Amino acid sequence: MLIALFPGDGIGPEVVTQARRVLDVVCGDALSYEEAPVGGAAYKAEGHPLPPATLDLAKRADAILFGAVGDPDCDALERHLRPEQAILGLRKELTLFANLRPAKLFPELADASALRPEVAKAIDLVIVRETNGDVYFGEKGMRTTPGGRRQGYDVMSYDEDEVARIARVGFETAKARRGKLCSVDKANVLETSQLWRDVVIEMSAEYPEIELSHMYVDNAAMQLVRNPGQFDVIVTGNLFGDILSDQASMCAGSIGMLPSATLDAEQKGLYEPIHGSAPDIAGQGKANPLATILSAAMMLRYSLGKAAEADRIEAAVAKALAAGHRTADLGGSVATAQMGDAVLAAL
Amino acid sequence: MLIALFPGDGIGPEVVTQARRVLDVVCGDALSYEEAPVGGAAYKAEGHPLPPATLDLAKRADAILFGAVGDPDCDALERHLRPEQAILGLRKELTLFANLRPAKLFPELADASALRPEVAKAIDLVIVRETNGDVYFGEKGMRTTPGGRRQGYDVMSYDEDEVARIARVGFETAKARRGKLCSVDKANVLETSQLWRDVVIEMSAEYPEIELSHMYVDNAAMQLVRNPGQFDVIVTGNLFGDILSDQASMCAGSIGMLPSATLDAEQKGLYEPIHGSAPDIAGQGKANPLATILSAAMMLRYSLGKAAEADRIEAAVAKALAAGHRTADLGGSVATAQMGDAVLAAL
Ligand SMILES: CC(C)[C@H](C(=O)O)[C@@H](O)C(=O)O
Ligand SMILES: CC(C)[C@H](C(=O)O)[C@@H](O)C(=O)O
Repeated sequence: MLIALFPGDGIGPEVVTQARRVLDVVCGDALSYEEAPVGGAAYKAEGHPLPPATLDLAKRADAILFGAVGDPDCDALERHLRPEQAILGLRKELTLFANLRPAKLFPELADASALRPEVAKAIDLVIVRETNGDVYFGEKGMRTTPGGRRQGYDVMSYDEDEVARIARVGFETAKARRGKLCSVDKANVLETSQLWRDVVIEMSAEYPEIELSHMYVDNAAMQLVRNPGQFDVIVTGNLFGDILSDQASMCAGSIGMLPSATLDAEQKGLYEPIHGSAPDIAGQGKANPLATILSAAMMLRYSLGKAAEADRIEAAVAKALAAGHRTADLGGSVATAQMGDAVLAAL
Repeated sequence: MLIALFPGDGIGPEVVTQARRVLDVVCGDALSYEEAPVGGAAYKAEGHPLPPATLDLAKRADAILFGAVGDPDCDALERHLRPEQAILGLRKELTLFANLRPAKLFPELADASALRPEVAKAIDLVIVRETNGDVYFGEKGMRTTPGGRRQGYDVMSYDEDEVARIARVGFETAKARRGKLCSVDKANVLETSQLWRDVVIEMSAEYPEIELSHMYVDNAAMQLVRNPGQFDVIVTGNLFGDILSDQASMCAGSIGMLPSATLDAEQKGLYEPIHGSAPDIAGQGKANPLATILSAAMMLRYSLGKAAEADRIEAAVAKALAAGHRTADLGGSVATAQMGDAVLAAL
């Protein structure tokens, strides 16, 4: 099975290196790898954040392991050349529409959360975020108003098929877990959300065993602080999912801990840590590689049918934490490669 | 000076009653009052959530004290008849574009926050949210795609004058506080945000003494949990401000504690608690009236030039809390009117 390795920018290469070491031990020759540049690194090398050869590799591979993109050097570029277009382009070109972001606190890290330990310990949820539509991919641009003023605009929209596709992932994910689905929208203001809500309600007839609720996004942001333990699965659109999943990750301790998967309809997927490229600490060996190592575990489980190997990696991460290893984001001073060593030792 | 009292739905009437008692003691005959229905209550009485006489009173009054709107009975109505249209309509018709949402923990309530006390205690911020534009007020509707599918859409946009108007409130608010302004957007994806960021940067030339930073909204949602003490003033658009201000309020303890002001260019304003109508506890005397009482204090300070009276109310609220009075949202069992009594006693 072929894995596309896309290290990207900033701390991306460092954390992907550690995940690769873990995969080598756990899967050996069962996996082969090809690497290609993405993001700012690809722009600097080849003039585009998602060069054709990178996209081609993504299409050929059985799964993609992605580091991070984002580079302040590129902030002034035209939008279509910025590093972020790599991840947006991959999601769109490969129809990776279902972004799964589990948030669960490793009990060893109860002290690392800004939330009270008793609140943080109760977190065990998955955010199912749509990543092919919404205001991310609608018509957008700068125009001039009749009064001669600059105006920026972006069209938010979903059609019923787009909503149904992600709603089904939400219901199925809830079915495989504790059976509770919370759909988050802003239907009191947005027509896009009204359609979202209508379609989710229509589909709920097929899932009588799932306990469905609806929450406005402002309330959801509040409830994720107040009592995150109330959630099992949250399904929401691209923009709200972007905000809520970053927020939820922080409730569960460090953002350096949390993996994600973005899947197409056939379970092919892109796997990446939730954190960004962190240019301020890049190349210093300070990054926490665990989110990427856990993303590799998700890859084995969801796209490669290797659940036992995924379990092994997750257990090794828990063991390394239990042994007291902590990178800087967790309040310790263990270096990136040492954390990799600790996971390897625990395997 | 004439105050328009709009109690609205759910717990709105209960909490406005307590604020009125406090105002009577503090301001006596200096203020006169007229009351009118809004929201679901107005729809049920007069067929519209913002009847002409209510809007007229809002325009005539020197300030508006607002309870809450929202009523599950009205969820199936056409959008323009729903209770929420009352608050959206008032913001728009009266050009109330600057929504100020201070979030600060009363030290007495450190235990009520889901955040660790040391994290929660550091919160002292104001969110300046734009409330006349963004995806709230753009063209919106349901349409059919060429493939015959239902599609909901909402246009997000800002022009440079709209951004400049609220950015100035942000800079001025920061100037009157600790001099730090964080502008929150999603400029890596949205053109509306790119214009927002450009205009904020342009205006910063007029405020060399203000320390300006920019943050993506997903990161801001995370940072508000991780380390809310880092923020002084946050300025952001309507949608992001809706989400972040509810989230921030919860970091600072109960949403039952937090007031807000929404101002026009002449400091005329609408004052309301951040919380909603809470239909589940309406009429039971369980609601916390402090957010509304503190909103009345903001009204005295911002619109009526009565800073000393505002100070007096805020001190009385702190005293009532210090004396141990707690409504249900704060983990106690004091009733709405008793909490009002406690504030009156402390005056
Ligand atoms: C980099 C950015 C475009 C991206 C997004 O907003 O989707 C990121 O924040 C994420 O959540 O994967
Ligand atoms: C009731 C609703 C339309 C409103 C909003 O989204 O602005 C509310 O959430 C608020 O924040 O005042």
